[in-house]
Amino acid sequence: MAKLTKRSDNYSQWYNELVVKADLAENSEVRGCMVIKPYGYAIWEKMQAALDKMFKDTGHSNAYFPLFVPKSLFEAEEQNAEGFAKECAVVTHYRLKNDPDKKGKLMVDPAAKLEEELIVRPTSEAIIWKTYKGWIQSYRDLPILINQWANVVRWEMRTRLFLRTAEFLWQEGHTAHATKGEAIAETEQMLKVYANFAEEFMALPVLQGIKTPSERFAGAIETYCIEALMQDGKALQAGTSHFLGQNFAKAFDVKFANSEGGLDYVWATSWGVSTRLIGALIMAHSDDLGLVLPPKLAPIHVVIVPIYKGLDQLDEISVVANSIKTELQNAGLTVKFDNRDTHKPGFKFADYEMKGVPVRIAIGPKDMENSCVEVARRDTLEKTTIAQDLVVDYIINLIDEIQENIYNRAQTFKVNNTYNVDTYDDFKKRLESTGGFISAHWDGTPETEELIKQETKATIRCIPLENEQEAGMCIRSGKPSTQRVVFAKSY
Amino acid sequence: MAKLTKRSDNYSQWYNELVVKADLAENSEVRGCMVIKPYGYAIWEKMQAALDKMFKDTGHSNAYFPLFVPKSLFEAEEQNAEGFAKECAVVTHYRLKNDPDKKGKLMVDPAAKLEEELIVRPTSEAIIWKTYKGWIQSYRDLPILINQWANVVRWEMRTRLFLRTAEFLWQEGHTAHATKGEAIAETEQMLKVYANFAEEFMALPVLQGIKTPSERFAGAIETYCIEALMQDGKALQAGTSHFLGQNFAKAFDVKFANSEGGLDYVWATSWGVSTRLIGALIMAHSDDLGLVLPPKLAPIHVVIVPIYKGLDQLDEISVVANSIKTELQNAGLTVKFDNRDTHKPGFKFADYEMKGVPVRIAIGPKDMENSCVEVARRDTLEKTTIAQDLVVDYIINLIDEIQENIYNRAQTFKVNNTYNVDTYDDFKKRLESTGGFISAHWDGTPETEELIKQETKATIRCIPLENEQEAGMCIRSGKPSTQRVVFAKSY
Repeated sequence: MAKLTKRSDNYSQWYNELVVKADLAENSEVRGCMVIKPYGYAIWEKMQAALDKMFKDTGHSNAYFPLFVPKSLFEAEEQNAEGFAKECAVVTHYRLKNDPDKKGKLMVDPAAKLEEELIVRPTSEAIIWKTYKGWIQSYRDLPILINQWANVVRWEMRTRLFLRTAEFLWQEGHTAHATKGEAIAETEQMLKVYANFAEEFMALPVLQGIKTPSERFAGAIETYCIEALMQDGKALQAGTSHFLGQNFAKAFDVKFANSEGGLDYVWATSWGVSTRLIGALIMAHSDDLGLVLPPKLAPIHVVIVPIYKGLDQLDEISVVANSIKTELQNAGLTVKFDNRDTHKPGFKFADYEMKGVPVRIAIGPKDMENSCVEVARRDTLEKTTIAQDLVVDYIINLIDEIQENIYNRAQTFKVNNTYNVDTYDDFKKRLESTGGFISAHWDGTPETEELIKQETKATIRCIPLENEQEAGMCIRSGKPSTQRVVFAKSY
Repeated sequence: MAKLTKRSDNYSQWYNELVVKADLAENSEVRGCMVIKPYGYAIWEKMQAALDKMFKDTGHSNAYFPLFVPKSLFEAEEQNAEGFAKECAVVTHYRLKNDPDKKGKLMVDPAAKLEEELIVRPTSEAIIWKTYKGWIQSYRDLPILINQWANVVRWEMRTRLFLRTAEFLWQEGHTAHATKGEAIAETEQMLKVYANFAEEFMALPVLQGIKTPSERFAGAIETYCIEALMQDGKALQAGTSHFLGQNFAKAFDVKFANSEGGLDYVWATSWGVSTRLIGALIMAHSDDLGLVLPPKLAPIHVVIVPIYKGLDQLDEISVVANSIKTELQNAGLTVKFDNRDTHKPGFKFADYEMKGVPVRIAIGPKDMENSCVEVARRDTLEKTTIAQDLVVDYIINLIDEIQENIYNRAQTFKVNNTYNVDTYDDFKKRLESTGGFISAHWDGTPETEELIKQETKATIRCIPLENEQEAGMCIRSGKPSTQRVVFAKSY
């Protein structure tokens, strides 16, 4: 297997190669759409399971709404419609017919034109709020706490596997509340859920904050986000939670009888994370040998590779390997014993390194003589020799240690790459040298924000939650500012 | 809550009302597409979990392929394309723009017409086999055993919730094999998986068989199916498993180097079940009071309803209720204690009957005096008084008993409604009176099959597996026949 491009040589190429070589995903025949391969999808299944449990533990249920949104519903909330109109896949016909000019070929049947075009959902607020209108009469019907696991389509022009694809998989929560306060509390709660998921499962410390108006979700009053820092110093928006106010309730006329007998518009939130998280996971932890996966999201925790000559040796090793495998499985770990005779141990080592399997056990004739095995951890690449009768306990501990170490490494990276700057010059130098999260004063105007973006390609990733108030001067305009915001170049 | 139409009065209306009143699903604003509500979706999640485990236990992995199929790929396998061409949603444009004639409205941007139209997948053989071509070079790359959980769209003209919708959720397995024998074994294995799932989880005995050529999946060499019998005597196709031969390999030129060094086309299977299973589940077991759910697929196993006057009584009852709830949860059951004071016990009883919760516990002041509770089972509607300290064990057993009883009832129904007939007259009388699975001789020609369908609306549901060979005369043509096949009217 050809080696990966080094991160230091070309980070972007390293990522593209890694996604393919680690068997996570590939481009499909459909422009901008990816095929998520079994190994990549297994990571998504782990993410889904953890998030789904967190959603249910906070009182949410799953449901399913249509893939299509009739154009008249789509355009009802104008800001939202305007935000997504330029990237919509549109269904206009519902039938094909034989092409009279080309035998064996099909053509769109012009007689089967839809009366009203259907938009393939880029997000589901419109169809969901149209549905909620039928479900909500009184405060007794509230709150509605629903999540949907689904595919969505946004016709992106420049796509990259996992990071930006025309079709992607995600979850979208859509909740309805009787009061503004309750809706804001929900928005903030789900941001915490995302931050906890990123930190606990992805081993990825994130910055929590609020988007500036120009970076808000189309149709939101306030967009909360978690931002993660990649190894190349660029930020990646990893999840968003939106307080939608009464915008959708007004667009779809969803009112409820409150407990005092009056009629109010319902308050809304929506929140989502997507297969983009797999891109974040890859870029945050991996190295020049391949993927590094936190054990909590690794499809395989431990791989056992036998090193042998002849079937007799393999048989002996297999007894030990299978016993270790069974014991580790009983402890809840996923273990693969790779006894294929079609590949050499060296190939297998490189392949499981590429795939980011957290722990590798190698067992050869010398190990058998000494009743030990060799244990290699993927995060540090350290190898240790361990007695066979101690290895199960050792690995059970090691798995936790690897999860923690990967988190700590990412946390250190984040801290080391977060900078306060006070002049535009320093700001630009910092962006050009290391990148990172750059905390700086901004005058609060969209004009200055746009200027900085034009001149440096950096955007305001967020106004951190619980931000310290501090008098200062905007790095670009020199106007007074009351707080720093966090800038970065981003994915 | 208004009562359901009785099954005996109008079975079809009973079904439609039940789906809505039990809060399972509703029609959406999009023609033919449904909204699956949280309670209905929770049943689907239970089905998914059980099936997913069975797929993985038989060596399959999940992956994800694009929603869209470019027209040129779609038409590559001609039979398949022809079979689905008339019900395809087609994406022709990728952008909307402001409508210059209508302020605030959008229109399809004619400048954003796709060079090649995209079909919203009605099934994924085409896009998947185009992908497999890149994955398969040698016999070492085989078998490929992949499943996908996804939404698909078939533009049906007459739709019914769960049974036939334009968009539905399903799983589709797509496997690739080096030999014909292996592919047929896979096809048959997955049919068994579906039959086992139906019987073990859905408590639904099914008939396993092979479709006649005219009922085959478009593009298949052989379609295996499971057929279930509904209470109105109509059959419902509950799952299909297709042996695709080398049709797709030839259409997409997928060859592999076999172990002898030659080049062969790859052998294929595909198999799927969908949210239609929820329709089957409803129609097989439910009664005039509402849903009857087998415990293995019930979102809630046990509901506890307190009967009280005043908060003091509720407090006392709550202590007992919560203790029972905890113990049942520890035994792995899902339990709801419905202490809402906004609804009367009578309302709650009717509501949980409508929703098919397998076991209801009621606790009132008299029960408290006697240290007992009232246990009602949904399947038989029987009520029993049980001592509080015995109720947990009682219910743990009862849950299994209910699962078994529902299965046995369905099995008895199936046996009692399977008929051998030998004349066309008896055939028609049987169809008009009870319906059911009607086993009769057929001459094996599509012409006779079509005539019978035209004249009676009955179709050949399948040629049962391990069918006894028996000389006879076709009920319609009088020509000789070597075996009976199973006819029914169907959903």
